[in-house]
Amino acid sequence: MVGDLVGEQMRADPGRALAGLEGLRELTGTEAGAQRVAWTPTWARARVWLREQLVALPVEVQIDEAGNLWAELAGADPRALVIGSHLDSVPDGGWLDGSLGVLGALEVLRALSAGPRPPLTVRLVDWADEEGARFGRSLLGSSAAAGLLDPAEVRDLHDAAGVALPDALREHGVELEAMPRAARRLRDVVSYVELHIEQGPVLEAASLPLGVVDVVVGARRHRVRFEGRSSHAGSTPMPARRDPVVAAARLALAVRAGAVTEAGVATVGAIHAEPGIPTAVAGSVELFVDQRHRDADALARMLEAAQAESQTIAAEEGTPVHWSRLQEVAPVGFDKRLVGAAERSVRAVTGDCLVLPSGALHDAAMVARAGVPAVMLFVQSIDGISHNRVEDSHAEHLADGVLALDRLVREVLSEGGGGRGLSRGAPTAGVD
Amino acid sequence: MVGDLVGEQMRADPGRALAGLEGLRELTGTEAGAQRVAWTPTWARARVWLREQLVALPVEVQIDEAGNLWAELAGADPRALVIGSHLDSVPDGGWLDGSLGVLGALEVLRALSAGPRPPLTVRLVDWADEEGARFGRSLLGSSAAAGLLDPAEVRDLHDAAGVALPDALREHGVELEAMPRAARRLRDVVSYVELHIEQGPVLEAASLPLGVVDVVVGARRHRVRFEGRSSHAGSTPMPARRDPVVAAARLALAVRAGAVTEAGVATVGAIHAEPGIPTAVAGSVELFVDQRHRDADALARMLEAAQAESQTIAAEEGTPVHWSRLQEVAPVGFDKRLVGAAERSVRAVTGDCLVLPSGALHDAAMVARAGVPAVMLFVQSIDGISHNRVEDSHAEHLADGVLALDRLVREVLSEGGGGRGLSRGAPTAGVD
Repeated sequence: MVGDLVGEQMRADPGRALAGLEGLRELTGTEAGAQRVAWTPTWARARVWLREQLVALPVEVQIDEAGNLWAELAGADPRALVIGSHLDSVPDGGWLDGSLGVLGALEVLRALSAGPRPPLTVRLVDWADEEGARFGRSLLGSSAAAGLLDPAEVRDLHDAAGVALPDALREHGVELEAMPRAARRLRDVVSYVELHIEQGPVLEAASLPLGVVDVVVGARRHRVRFEGRSSHAGSTPMPARRDPVVAAARLALAVRAGAVTEAGVATVGAIHAEPGIPTAVAGSVELFVDQRHRDADALARMLEAAQAESQTIAAEEGTPVHWSRLQEVAPVGFDKRLVGAAERSVRAVTGDCLVLPSGALHDAAMVARAGVPAVMLFVQSIDGISHNRVEDSHAEHLADGVLALDRLVREVLSEGGGGRGLSRGAPTAGVD
Repeated sequence: MVGDLVGEQMRADPGRALAGLEGLRELTGTEAGAQRVAWTPTWARARVWLREQLVALPVEVQIDEAGNLWAELAGADPRALVIGSHLDSVPDGGWLDGSLGVLGALEVLRALSAGPRPPLTVRLVDWADEEGARFGRSLLGSSAAAGLLDPAEVRDLHDAAGVALPDALREHGVELEAMPRAARRLRDVVSYVELHIEQGPVLEAASLPLGVVDVVVGARRHRVRFEGRSSHAGSTPMPARRDPVVAAARLALAVRAGAVTEAGVATVGAIHAEPGIPTAVAGSVELFVDQRHRDADALARMLEAAQAESQTIAAEEGTPVHWSRLQEVAPVGFDKRLVGAAERSVRAVTGDCLVLPSGALHDAAMVARAGVPAVMLFVQSIDGISHNRVEDSHAEHLADGVLALDRLVREVLSEGGGGRGLSRGAPTAGVD
């Protein structure tokens, strides 16, 4: 099934990709971790470094209207296979989140450049501002490329220092109002593949170096407020209380139970009581409820159950409840043929493969929502830790990841030559 | 049973006490509420006002080493009956908390001054810094008078602006190291009575204007910390989590259940998750557990049950738990004969009486701990609200309170004349 392009002589060199990751870490990290926050000088430095790596290759480098960096290796067919991820990080972030995928793509591009002209055009992409760490809006560049960015929605965003997003973008040559024009970049793309660390504990628990993502889960995020009645902790008998902390505690447990029932995940990561003093029953409590599921119907049931339970709690505790929606993202299924091809590549490299959902959002989900067949490869994360300077993966697993990415790209290119699996269609939602 | 001293001609005038409360409110309150925070100019102004009211009376006014203000009406016997409370308030506090008892005492002193020399010496006391609002240590003046203040324990206290407690005291003529000498002020005291608002909903629920306090509940206060493992809210499956918010929620509910079981009260008034972001399982949670009970054994059982449950939770959730003790106060029972006399007075004025515990600490508890027979009268609080500008009581209930205080004082004085009920002994702990 896999043709000449998978020949040994043109394989990517994982050692070179790892050396690149180390070099980037040295250039853009501190003792506290990676500092490649989008639209900052350190991030710009990382991109200058990337362009230096690309200089030796027969590729054309461009920055699109949304600030995404593209490096194109022309193929026999102008239609393109895109390989990418993001160089930007959270503050004090990890060395692999995003950069693994960009450096993996660079290495594959290097290997392909040393061979014959590929049947499809191949592009590397470094998406701009995946993390949204500075302005709070993630997937900025990829959502623009996917035609899913409305400038009006982000125009008023400011960073912690009060800098407006449009001003920060302009410093890096990006005009907010022009960003939607980046959407033309995906029009001729027939496949998108992304290598990323898992950022979770599933592959480690399964003792597998690599996995393939078949769906990016949907998420519902709400701020929930219980109104109680602040009163003296000593002089208010238990039956006379309207205690919003008790109400919030009950909801937190109900939210967890609902996630277990539906085999999804749900988190109360923040909770705040007002006035929040040890000697008074609180007057109100706010908590954040984050619920995720690969299946849109199951996600809806999780939310409905939590909201119904919160009303029961509100009635029983005398603590009226109010839900404010913060985010709603539908599950995005990846392309079944690409998932199959990715699984074959992973098995070929490691002997085994787990197909798993991604609980975190990724640029690949934006690409898939634009109707481009996409897939992701995951590398095992040690202890499941990410967004932290201790984020790490075993070197041999990283190497396996680069090899599997290389093999997947070559299989897609061979099939592209044969005209199979590259037809564009709507993304599959909530596949199971 | 009640002798000549209860004759109509010398009765206290509640209207005068209420007018005094209104005058004090006008002088020391703002639209946000009472501002008589101890060791501030507004508190000092309140005391100047009090001294102006005392000028017309045949009393000797003194400030003791702890800053407590005393006004003495000499009696046939140098042994003293003390009536008092505190003028200081919390910031943005209520108009009645503390000042009702001082103005009530003033009115009783006025009435007694108009009559024959009382059989016992009668003193009004305005305790200094009951609230501890500025430096965090409550009952400062009364604990010094009770011989229970160790200057070393409070020497390093600072207010929010960084002012040291000893410096603030000195501005008001008080030397911290000399405060324990105020203890001699209680040596010749044979009875202590205090009128105060309930600051809770019990009397209102019972439709009673007044009640008598037989015990000030004991309290145990702890900071409880659960250590979890911060992880991604999307990519961490439920079974892989060590979620301290879930652990804290379970403990909050267990703490409430334990209070209901033992017929005490317990409160989680503050809870804080770190890092406290909506998209991450928290790494740790701190919560405050405040437990109170009139019975020391029941209080100990409440604490033991909560601690045992927290260990079960810690084991089941993988979230180690640590308890730090913040406060431990034993229940203090009031004098049985004084409680009986107070009950008779309340019944005589209002026709009915409820004997109830005080869930809040009061200066009277310090006096009782020093071995002085003491008792408190409570006036119904509207909606149970206190420490707030909306704190209020019905005018007729306030008037009833002053009348009951007056009647109680006269009964104690009559009995004191007859040598009954005034022997000093150890306070009763945890009476039931």
